Amino acid sequence: MTEYLSDPQGSLKTYFATVEDDCTVIYANFGGADPNVDQVEINVRPNCVKPVHVGINYITLEGLEICCAATQWNPPTGVQSGMVDTYWSKGWIIQNCHLHDAKTSAISLGKEVSTGNCECTRYRRKPGYQYQMEAVFKALKRGWSKELIGSHKVLHNVIHDCGENGVVGHLGCVFSEIAYNSIYNIAKKYEFFGHEIAGIKLHTAIDVRIHHNDIYNCALGIWLDWEVQGTRVSSNVFAQNTRDLMIEVTHGPCVVDNNIFASDYNFDNVAQGTALINNLFMGTPRRIDTRDRATPYHTPHSTDVAGVAVVVSGDDRVMNNIFVGAPMGPNGISVSGTAHYNGHGDSMEEYVAKAFAGMPEDHTVFNALKDPVFIKSNLYVNDAPHYDLEKDFTATADNPHFALERVNGQPVLKCHLSTEMLKRCSIVKSWDLGAPRITECPYEDFEGHEIVFNCDLNGTCATLDETQRLAGPLANLKVGDNAVALLAQVARLA
Amino acid sequence: MTEYLSDPQGSLKTYFATVEDDCTVIYANFGGADPNVDQVEINVRPNCVKPVHVGINYITLEGLEICCAATQWNPPTGVQSGMVDTYWSKGWIIQNCHLHDAKTSAISLGKEVSTGNCECTRYRRKPGYQYQMEAVFKALKRGWSKELIGSHKVLHNVIHDCGENGVVGHLGCVFSEIAYNSIYNIAKKYEFFGHEIAGIKLHTAIDVRIHHNDIYNCALGIWLDWEVQGTRVSSNVFAQNTRDLMIEVTHGPCVVDNNIFASDYNFDNVAQGTALINNLFMGTPRRIDTRDRATPYHTPHSTDVAGVAVVVSGDDRVMNNIFVGAPMGPNGISVSGTAHYNGHGDSMEEYVAKAFAGMPEDHTVFNALKDPVFIKSNLYVNDAPHYDLEKDFTATADNPHFALERVNGQPVLKCHLSTEMLKRCSIVKSWDLGAPRITECPYEDFEGHEIVFNCDLNGTCATLDETQRLAGPLANLKVGDNAVALLAQVARLA
Amino acid sequence: MTEYLSDPQGSLKTYFATVEDDCTVIYANFGGADPNVDQVEINVRPNCVKPVHVGINYITLEGLEICCAATQWNPPTGVQSGMVDTYWSKGWIIQNCHLHDAKTSAISLGKEVSTGNCECTRYRRKPGYQYQMEAVFKALKRGWSKELIGSHKVLHNVIHDCGENGVVGHLGCVFSEIAYNSIYNIAKKYEFFGHEIAGIKLHTAIDVRIHHNDIYNCALGIWLDWEVQGTRVSSNVFAQNTRDLMIEVTHGPCVVDNNIFASDYNFDNVAQGTALINNLFMGTPRRIDTRDRATPYHTPHSTDVAGVAVVVSGDDRVMNNIFVGAPMGPNGISVSGTAHYNGHGDSMEEYVAKAFAGMPEDHTVFNALKDPVFIKSNLYVNDAPHYDLEKDFTATADNPHFALERVNGQPVLKCHLSTEMLKRCSIVKSWDLGAPRITECPYEDFEGHEIVFNCDLNGTCATLDETQRLAGPLANLKVGDNAVALLAQVARLA
Amino acid sequence: MTEYLSDPQGSLKTYFATVEDDCTVIYANFGGADPNVDQVEINVRPNCVKPVHVGINYITLEGLEICCAATQWNPPTGVQSGMVDTYWSKGWIIQNCHLHDAKTSAISLGKEVSTGNCECTRYRRKPGYQYQMEAVFKALKRGWSKELIGSHKVLHNVIHDCGENGVVGHLGCVFSEIAYNSIYNIAKKYEFFGHEIAGIKLHTAIDVRIHHNDIYNCALGIWLDWEVQGTRVSSNVFAQNTRDLMIEVTHGPCVVDNNIFASDYNFDNVAQGTALINNLFMGTPRRIDTRDRATPYHTPHSTDVAGVAVVVSGDDRVMNNIFVGAPMGPNGISVSGTAHYNGHGDSMEEYVAKAFAGMPEDHTVFNALKDPVFIKSNLYVNDAPHYDLEKDFTATADNPHFALERVNGQPVLKCHLSTEMLKRCSIVKSWDLGAPRITECPYEDFEGHEIVFNCDLNGTCATLDETQRLAGPLANLKVGDNAVALLAQVARLA
Repeated sequence: MTEYLSDPQGSLKTYFATVEDDCTVIYANFGGADPNVDQVEINVRPNCVKPVHVGINYITLEGLEICCAATQWNPPTGVQSGMVDTYWSKGWIIQNCHLHDAKTSAISLGKEVSTGNCECTRYRRKPGYQYQMEAVFKALKRGWSKELIGSHKVLHNVIHDCGENGVVGHLGCVFSEIAYNSIYNIAKKYEFFGHEIAGIKLHTAIDVRIHHNDIYNCALGIWLDWEVQGTRVSSNVFAQNTRDLMIEVTHGPCVVDNNIFASDYNFDNVAQGTALINNLFMGTPRRIDTRDRATPYHTPHSTDVAGVAVVVSGDDRVMNNIFVGAPMGPNGISVSGTAHYNGHGDSMEEYVAKAFAGMPEDHTVFNALKDPVFIKSNLYVNDAPHYDLEKDFTATADNPHFALERVNGQPVLKCHLSTEMLKRCSIVKSWDLGAPRITECPYEDFEGHEIVFNCDLNGTCATLDETQRLAGPLANLKVGDNAVALLAQVARLA
Repeated sequence: MTEYLSDPQGSLKTYFATVEDDCTVIYANFGGADPNVDQVEINVRPNCVKPVHVGINYITLEGLEICCAATQWNPPTGVQSGMVDTYWSKGWIIQNCHLHDAKTSAISLGKEVSTGNCECTRYRRKPGYQYQMEAVFKALKRGWSKELIGSHKVLHNVIHDCGENGVVGHLGCVFSEIAYNSIYNIAKKYEFFGHEIAGIKLHTAIDVRIHHNDIYNCALGIWLDWEVQGTRVSSNVFAQNTRDLMIEVTHGPCVVDNNIFASDYNFDNVAQGTALINNLFMGTPRRIDTRDRATPYHTPHSTDVAGVAVVVSGDDRVMNNIFVGAPMGPNGISVSGTAHYNGHGDSMEEYVAKAFAGMPEDHTVFNALKDPVFIKSNLYVNDAPHYDLEKDFTATADNPHFALERVNGQPVLKCHLSTEMLKRCSIVKSWDLGAPRITECPYEDFEGHEIVFNCDLNGTCATLDETQRLAGPLANLKVGDNAVALLAQVARLA
Repeated sequence: MTEYLSDPQGSLKTYFATVEDDCTVIYANFGGADPNVDQVEINVRPNCVKPVHVGINYITLEGLEICCAATQWNPPTGVQSGMVDTYWSKGWIIQNCHLHDAKTSAISLGKEVSTGNCECTRYRRKPGYQYQMEAVFKALKRGWSKELIGSHKVLHNVIHDCGENGVVGHLGCVFSEIAYNSIYNIAKKYEFFGHEIAGIKLHTAIDVRIHHNDIYNCALGIWLDWEVQGTRVSSNVFAQNTRDLMIEVTHGPCVVDNNIFASDYNFDNVAQGTALINNLFMGTPRRIDTRDRATPYHTPHSTDVAGVAVVVSGDDRVMNNIFVGAPMGPNGISVSGTAHYNGHGDSMEEYVAKAFAGMPEDHTVFNALKDPVFIKSNLYVNDAPHYDLEKDFTATADNPHFALERVNGQPVLKCHLSTEMLKRCSIVKSWDLGAPRITECPYEDFEGHEIVFNCDLNGTCATLDETQRLAGPLANLKVGDNAVALLAQVARLA
Repeated sequence: MTEYLSDPQGSLKTYFATVEDDCTVIYANFGGADPNVDQVEINVRPNCVKPVHVGINYITLEGLEICCAATQWNPPTGVQSGMVDTYWSKGWIIQNCHLHDAKTSAISLGKEVSTGNCECTRYRRKPGYQYQMEAVFKALKRGWSKELIGSHKVLHNVIHDCGENGVVGHLGCVFSEIAYNSIYNIAKKYEFFGHEIAGIKLHTAIDVRIHHNDIYNCALGIWLDWEVQGTRVSSNVFAQNTRDLMIEVTHGPCVVDNNIFASDYNFDNVAQGTALINNLFMGTPRRIDTRDRATPYHTPHSTDVAGVAVVVSGDDRVMNNIFVGAPMGPNGISVSGTAHYNGHGDSMEEYVAKAFAGMPEDHTVFNALKDPVFIKSNLYVNDAPHYDLEKDFTATADNPHFALERVNGQPVLKCHLSTEMLKRCSIVKSWDLGAPRITECPYEDFEGHEIVFNCDLNGTCATLDETQRLAGPLANLKVGDNAVALLAQVARLA
C-alpha cells in the first residue's frame, strides 16, 4: 500500500535553529512568502491554553480559534501537551472551537508531569513500555480517579492540519466524551514518524465515548492504546486515512458500533475483547497478538487496577456488520471479512473444558489455547470471506459498490443494493454479549446501563418493540441506488 | 538426582472416606496400631487457632504444642490455611511453640478469602497465575498495607512433619520476621506434589526477615515467590533438602547472606535482582528466565504497586561467597560456581549504551539484552567455575571437604582449609550495591537503613573500623581442620 | 405528645433465659398458647441469609418469606445484622419477599466486623460517636467504595413487625435503592428503646434512593444519619409514625420530594443542606443544630472523604411544598410551616459579606453566623406560618382537611380544596438549587444528572415544555373534594 | 507581659509600591543608606530554590548562603512558600546552609497548590479551618504518604532574621528531621502579625524529629499545629522567645523531652496526649481546650486518617521534669508547675468507670469528663505548685536561680543546686506511658521502637543497666554552682 502526502509542497516548509554566541538564528523555508514583508509570528509561550498547575477544573472554552502553536512532541510517558492542555484536571468543555495548524497536538487530555517525564528517552534503563506501566501506578497515587480527573467534553470542534494529533490524551482522558468533531489532515505532512500519531490518540480511554466524528485524511484515524475499557466508538465516519482505527494491548470490553470504515485499511486489531456491531467495513483489517507486553485492566467504570495481562487475541464479538471483500491486507496477516478468526472456537464452555483438561498445569495450558470468538449475522459482499463457524450470516459475490463521497464537505455514502443485501438481523443488546474473558466486565455504557443497538449512525432508531434492524450502520437503505448523507450535526468550516 | 522418602512406612499410613446413605465410613491404614484399643482423634474444627474474622491483631501464642490437624491444601489464590492461621491481621507473635504433624501447613500468614477463593480450580476461565495477579490488587482494596496487615513474628519454634509447609503465607506475611526456628521433615512423605510445598513458602515476602533458621530434610527449604522485595534471608543453615532455596518471578532487591547451603541443589534462581553475600554454596544452582509471567513490584518498604514486569534473569550481586565445585546440576541448565553468568556484562553503563543504540525501538531492544551482573571477590574451591569477568576472585582445585553434620541435633560444619581458602574480602555495604534495574529500590534493611555485612552466621562481627572479613558465612575459621557448631540459639526439641 | 403501643398484649409476650449448671432454662410468656401442644421454634443459626464471608456479590433473593428470627441488637459501630444480611458485598437484589417478625431487623445492608465491633460498649474509652467516626476511615481501608460495596436493591417487599428496623444499614448501603416496599409495625411493641430504631435506618446513605415506600405505624419512619449525601427520598407516604423522617448530623445535598408526611411529627431536621420540594407536611417539624459532633462529608458520588464538619443548621431549600398548620411541635423548638427559619438570611452573597467583615478572624466568625435558606413558592394552609423573607408564597387560614385513609390496605389522600389551594408553581430543577455551603456538591441524581421535579407522587408528569405544576406532591387535584389513591405499585399482602 | 522589638530601628525599614500608568514606583526606607550609591537588589524570581513541579525528590542543598528574598505570606491552606521550597517532594537534605533575611520563611516543607490555594481568603464561604480540613483529604488523594512525600532533613543550618518562619511546613513535612540548627530573630521586627509565625511552624508534623536546635529571640519558638503524632521535640534550648513552644489541636502521642525552656512563657498547651519528660521549665505554661475545631488523627507512623476529634485537654504525661516557680502566666489561665492539672483524675480505669456509669448516653457523658493525667517524679523549685495527686515528687521553696546565658554564642545554663535538687528519678521508658486516649497509638520513636529516656540534652547517657537519672534535662549537675555549656554540635556563624 502506497502512502501519500496530503500536501507535498507544504511538507517542505520546515525550519531549524542554531544557537550562536549571542543570538539564535532561525532558518525557515517560507515558500513564496517574504518574511520581511509578510507577517511572521513566533510563539513564546509553551501553550495557548494550559492551567498553571494541576487541578484547575470545570473550565469551558467556547467558540475560539486556536492555531499555529508548537508544543513539543512527546510520548505518553512524558507530558503529551497540545495547544490546549487540560493538565490533570476535571470537567473541561471544549466546544465549537476551530483548532488548526498545531505543530504537534491541538488538544491534550493528558497527564501531569510527576507521573512520568520521558525517563526512557533520558535514561534508557528500562523500556518506555515499562515507564508507561509505572506511570499508571504513579497516577493512581496522584489522584487518578473519577472523582478528580477527566470527564472532559470535546464537542463540535473543527480540528485540522496538526502534526501529531487532533486530540491526544493519556490518563487524563478517562470518562470523557469526544463527539461531533471534524478531524482531518493529521500528520499528513509527515512532520513526525511512528508512535502516537493519529486523529485521536488515547491511552487509558476508560469509559470514553467517541461518537459522530468525521475523521479523514489522517495518518491514523483513532488509535486506542492500553486500558481501553468501557469505551464506545460509535457512529463515526472514517475515510481516506492510512489506517482508520487501531486498538492496542487491551482486553475489553470495547464497543465499536455503527461506524463506516471507508479507507483501505480499516482496523488494526492488536487487542481482544472488542465488540464490533453494525459497522460497515470497506477495507481490510489486521489482527495480531502481543505476548510480550502485559497491560493493566480495571474494575468496571473505575481507574482501580484489577490485574495485568498480555493480549492473546480473540474474545471478540462480531455481529450485524457489513464486510466488503477487499484485496489482501497490508502485511498478509489478515484479509477482509472474518475468516481470519478461523481456528478460534465459538464457545466459552469449550474453552473452559480444554483448560480443565490441562490441569494441573497452569498458564502454559492457557497460553496454548485460542480464545473463543462470537460471530454471527454479518453480511459479506464482494466475496468477503466469513468465519467458518458463523451462524446466520449472508454472503454474496455481488458488489454493492459502496463509495464514500463528500458533498459540500459532508460525507455521503453511495451504494447499489440487492434485496439480499438488506439483511435483517436481531438487534444486539450488550448484556447478551457476555464479558471479556480476562476483565469479566460486561459490555454496557459508561453509566453501567445496557446498550441496545437499535439506533443507526444517522439517529434513526428502531422502537423498543422492534427486534430487528438492517445489517450495517444505516437503517434507511433500499434496493437499488442509495445516497445517504451522513453526520449532519458535525461541526464544519463554513 | 534421586529423591527419597524420609519415612517410607509412614507414607503408607493414609486414609480415605466414603459417604454412605446414613454415615461416612473412614478407611485408614493404622499400621500396627489397633484403633479399637489405641486413641483415635478426629478433628472437627477447621483450624486449631484462627480468628473468627479478619483484623484480630496483636495476638501472642507462646509455649504451646499444636499438632495433628488437617487443614485443606490450598494454592495462594485460595485461603492457604494452617493449624495456626493469622488470617489477614497484624502483629501476631508465635514463639516457643512446638508445631508438628499438620496435614498441610503448621503456620499460615496468609490472606483473606474475598481476595481469592480458588477461582482457577473452580472455573478455569483464566490461569491461576492471572487470579494471583488479581488477588494482589483486590488485597490492596481490602487493606493490604503496613498499617493493617502483617508484621508478624514467628520465633524460636520447632516445626516438623507437615505435608505442605512449616510456614506459608501470601500477602499476609509482609513485614514479618521468621527466625530461630527448626523446620524439618516437610512434605517428605509426599503427601502432596508440586506447587506451594516448602519448609517456608511465601508469596509477596515484602520486607520479610528470615534468619537463623535450621531447615533440613524438606522438599524445598525456602521458596520465595512473587514480589520478594526488601527481603533478607540471612544466617540460615540448609541441609538434606531436595532444594534449599528458590526465588521465583521477582525483581529484587532481595538479600541472601551468611547462609550455609549444604544440600546438593542449593538455589533455584528464577528471579533477578538478588544479592548473594558471604554464603557457602556446597551444591549447584539453576538459573532461568520467565518471560511469560509478569509480576508486580513495589514502592520501597510498601505494598503500593509501582509496576509489573517479567523476569529476564541477571541483575544479581554475588560477592564474598564460597562456591564448592559440584557435579552438573539437576537439569543441565547450570553448574556450580558463577560461570553460568558468562555472557552477561558487568556494568550498567554498558547496558544503557546498548539500549540507547537501539533507539527508537523500545521493548524489543531491551528484550534482546542481557542484564548486567556484579560479581566479585568470591572463593571457588574444588574446581567450581567462576564468572569470566569477575575481579578479585580466588579459585583452587583443592577440596576443603565441607561437610554439615549434626551433633545432638545441632548442625556442625566441618572442613579442612588451606591458607588460600581463608580469603579476606572487603566487607560489603548494601548501599554500594546499586539498585535492581527494574525496581530501582536500594539494597537496605526493612527499616531503610544500610546493611553492613560485617557479622557472620554465628554472630561474630567485625568492628566498624575493620574493612575485611573472610569469604563465606563464618569468621572464625583457621588453617587445617575446623568444626564449627552453628545456630546455638535455635529452638530444638529436648 | 403521647406515644402508643400498637399491640399492648403482644408487647408482653417476651422471654428470658437463665443458665443453670447443666442446661439453659427459657422462661417465656406464650400468651394463651400451650407450648407443649403448639409449635415452638428456637432459632439456632445467627441469620436466615448471610454470606459466610465478605465480598459475596450479586445475590438475588426473590419471592421468599423470611420471618421469626432473632439477630442481636446492635449499633452502627457493631455489625448491625438482620434476618437477611448482605455483609459487606455488592449488588444484591432482595425483591418480592415477605419479611416479618424479626426480633431486630429484617434486612441489613451493613458493614463488616473488622471496621468496628461495639468498642464503646465494651471498653468505654471513647464515645460511640468517636468509634463511628473511626469506622468510616477503617471502612475506606477495607474496600468501602462504589467499586466493591453497596448498590443493593430492596424492591417490592412487605416488611412488618420487627423490633428494630425494616431495613438497616451502615456503610454497606451506599448507592442502593429501596423502593415500592410496605414497611409497618416497626418497634411498636417497644422491644428496644432509643437509638437506631426506624422503618428504614441508614448511616452513610450516599446516593441512596428511597422512593415509593408505604411506611406507617413505625417508631420512626425513615432515619438518615451521618453522611446523607446525594440521597433522594421521593414519593413515599408516611402515616401514623411517631416521627416520619429524621435526618441527622449531615450537610447535604439531600433531596426530599413529593412525599406525603401524614403523621403529627413530620420531620426531625438535625441536619443542613436538605432540599424539600413538592411535599405535603400535615404535622410539625423540629430543627436543631449539633455543634459537638462533626461528621464526614464526601466527594460527589463517592465514598472519598472530603472533610468533616459539625451541623450549624440552615442551608435548606424549601419550595413548592404544602404546609398544614398544626399545634406546637413536640418540644417547643419549632412549629409547623417555615417560620422557624426566621432569622436566617436568604442569600449566600449576604452570608459571605458578613464573613468577610469578620476578617481576619476565622472559625469564630463563621460559628456566629446563621446559614442562609432558600424558601419560596410554598402553600400554607390552616394558618401555617411562613418564613418572613419568603417570596411567591400563598397563605390561608382555610383548612383543606387533609386526611390519609387506608382503603383495602392502600393509602388514600382526602382533602377539600379551594381555588387558591391549587397553587401553580414553577417546576424546580435541581441544578438551580446551588450547592450546600459545606459540601459544595450540586443537587442532582445519583448518576450526576439534573433532577427536574416535574413528576408527582403517582407518576403523573408535566411535559418538558411545561414550566409549572401544583404545589405539593399531587398533580391531579381539583377544587372541592378529592380522594386520591396512592402508591398503586407498592407490594402488599393479599 | 510586655513584648519587645528586637530591632526597633530595623522594623522601620519597610517599603511599599504604587502602580503608575507606565511604571511601578517603590518607596523604601533605606535608613542611613543611599540607594543611589549602595547596592540595591530586587528579587524577580518567586523563590531562590523551588522545583518547577511536584515530585522532584532527593535533592541536597549543602553549604549555601541563601538570603534576602521575599516570598508571599501564606496560610497553610495556601502554598506556604519560602526562599527554599521542597514543594511536595521527598527526601531533600538541606544542611550546613546559612539562610537569613527572608521576608517570610527561610525553608518551606509544605504542600502543593491543588490541595488548597487560599480559598477562605478568596471566597469566605467556609472558614480557613474548614479548608485546612479539606486540604488534608485532598492531599491524601494527591499522594500524601510516606512513600511519596516528606522525609526531609534540615540539619546544621543557621537561620535568622526572617519575617514569618525559619522552617515552615504543612503536609510536606511528614517524617522529617530538623536538628542542630540555630534559629533566631524570627518575626521580631513584627513584619506580620498573628497566625503561622514561629521559628519552626509545622502542621501535620507526623513522626517529625526536632532536636538539638538553639531557638531564641523568636515570636514563638516552635509551633506544632494539627496532627502532631509520633512527633518528638528533644534536647532543644529555647530562650528569649515570646513563647517557647505551642502545640495546638492535636491528640498525641507527642514526646517533649530533655529541653530547656528558658523564656518567661514556656508552653502553650492547646492539645492533649503530650508526654513531657525530663525538661526544665523556667517560666509558665497555658493549657486550654478547643471544643469547636475537630482535627484528624492517624494510624501510627502513617498519613492514613484514623478519625477526627476535638481537643478536651488533659491525657498528658509529665514526669522527671524540673519546674521553677514563676509569676502568674500571661492570661491567668494557668500558672507554673503542674497544679493546673488539679481536677483531672490520675487513672484511665477511673475515667472508664465514670463513662460506663453514664450509659446509655454517649458523647454527652464523655464531654463532661476530664481526661486523666499521669504526673509523677517531678522536681518543683522556687515554690512551683504541683499536681495534687502526684506521687514521688520533690518540692521546695528554695530557688536554684537557673539562668541561661550565652558565651561566644553558645548557651550556658547556670544554677546553684542543693542536694535535694539532685533528685534521682526512674528512667522513663516510652512503652510504659500507655497510649493517648483518642489515638490509641503508643509513645515510641518514628520507626516504632521504644524510647528509653536515658540520655540527657548533652548526650550523656545512663547505661542500660542503670534505672535512674536526675530530674531535668542534664545529667552532670552537682551540688552548688553549675555552669553547663549546651548544644556544642549546633551550627553557628563564626
